Amino acid sequence: MNGASRPIAILGGTGPAGMGLALRWARAGEPIIIGSRDAQRAQDAADGIKEIIGDQARVSGMENSAACAAADLLVLTVPFEGQAALLKQLKPAIRPGSILIDTTVALAAGVGGRASRTLGVWQGSSAQQAAELVPKGVAVVAAFHNLSAELLNGDENLDCDVIVCSDDPNALQLTRGLAAKIPGVRAIDGGKLENARILEQITALLVGLNIRHKGHGGIRITGLPAEAYQ
Amino acid sequence: MNGASRPIAILGGTGPAGMGLALRWARAGEPIIIGSRDAQRAQDAADGIKEIIGDQARVSGMENSAACAAADLLVLTVPFEGQAALLKQLKPAIRPGSILIDTTVALAAGVGGRASRTLGVWQGSSAQQAAELVPKGVAVVAAFHNLSAELLNGDENLDCDVIVCSDDPNALQLTRGLAAKIPGVRAIDGGKLENARILEQITALLVGLNIRHKGHGGIRITGLPAEAYQ
Repeated sequence: MNGASRPIAILGGTGPAGMGLALRWARAGEPIIIGSRDAQRAQDAADGIKEIIGDQARVSGMENSAACAAADLLVLTVPFEGQAALLKQLKPAIRPGSILIDTTVALAAGVGGRASRTLGVWQGSSAQQAAELVPKGVAVVAAFHNLSAELLNGDENLDCDVIVCSDDPNALQLTRGLAAKIPGVRAIDGGKLENARILEQITALLVGLNIRHKGHGGIRITGLPAEAYQ
Repeated sequence: MNGASRPIAILGGTGPAGMGLALRWARAGEPIIIGSRDAQRAQDAADGIKEIIGDQARVSGMENSAACAAADLLVLTVPFEGQAALLKQLKPAIRPGSILIDTTVALAAGVGGRASRTLGVWQGSSAQQAAELVPKGVAVVAAFHNLSAELLNGDENLDCDVIVCSDDPNALQLTRGLAAKIPGVRAIDGGKLENARILEQITALLVGLNIRHKGHGGIRITGLPAEAYQ
């Protein structure tokens, strides 16, 4: 669904979640730009991915603003406590018509609380906060909250579904296509962006299950007709 | 885990969720009391279950207060908008040391909104509201929010996990045992009762997926070690 020439910029992409997504999409042949506050750190992260999957991987690293200027498919993988500030800073650099895929979860750990609890976000969810902060005409999508970063950074197929929410049907479909490029993942249309609040809560539940049971929890949605899964 | 002589009273049990649980547990040999505001309606519901699975089924019907007086294992299956009033009414009838399993979800449909959205509950969740309303010494458990009532009322194995939350470890374990009696269900310890807020939200997500995709959605938790599943 994503044309081979359309790079994916992963903003704040040097953390475990961003690196895991970069690794999986680079393996699938997608061109990736890893964004970071520090261009050198981004470049080192890109080099790290090439070391794993080989020099044919199309992965580069840039400062976050430069990554926005070089791509119109943006994936935000910063912790919640950095989300709003980064989006405000990047606003002038985000190209009109871009798609921003928000993966943020407002875990209470970000303010010294527990990672199995969330903060209330005034707008309803982190994704809806993002939608308030991007330039007009940028479509916001919520997805990828519930994938284990540790498993993403491994080699095995994931045993997890990705529920995708957006008010923009085209951006939603494009994101489903990206999700389905991760081996083992099935992408499900989760409806409007407001439903992101539930996806974000599920991450806190999975964190709690992981702590309690020492696992890498994920979710599968059962009971939907085959055409609901991509 | 539940002794053969310990009946399960399903309060407000004549609706689809209560009937489905009654059917599955009666099939597993558990003695069931269906509770209703109207004793005759409860009795009719019990007769309906006997018609399906045969006269050997140990199912009776009683007015809700009488059901509380006859059992110390209580499952609450009323809609959210009736939950608080019913618990206040039943308070004198609930026996000390009882376990109350709350299945309530505060869907906005209860106040004329959508069933894919929830209301905010001051205490954090419907289950925590229940915990405030039961007599002292009654353990509250949250479970069974995410099972399709339609599938429960059928014959096939369910493809769904039940996450069980409670601040009382014994009540939590006993409820896991009850969940595991439903064919296909795996029961998972979800920790403290406060986590019920996430289980309740997941129901709204599944309702939305069911509407969008015309299915009977459920969830499976993946990635936990085998001993986490009962």
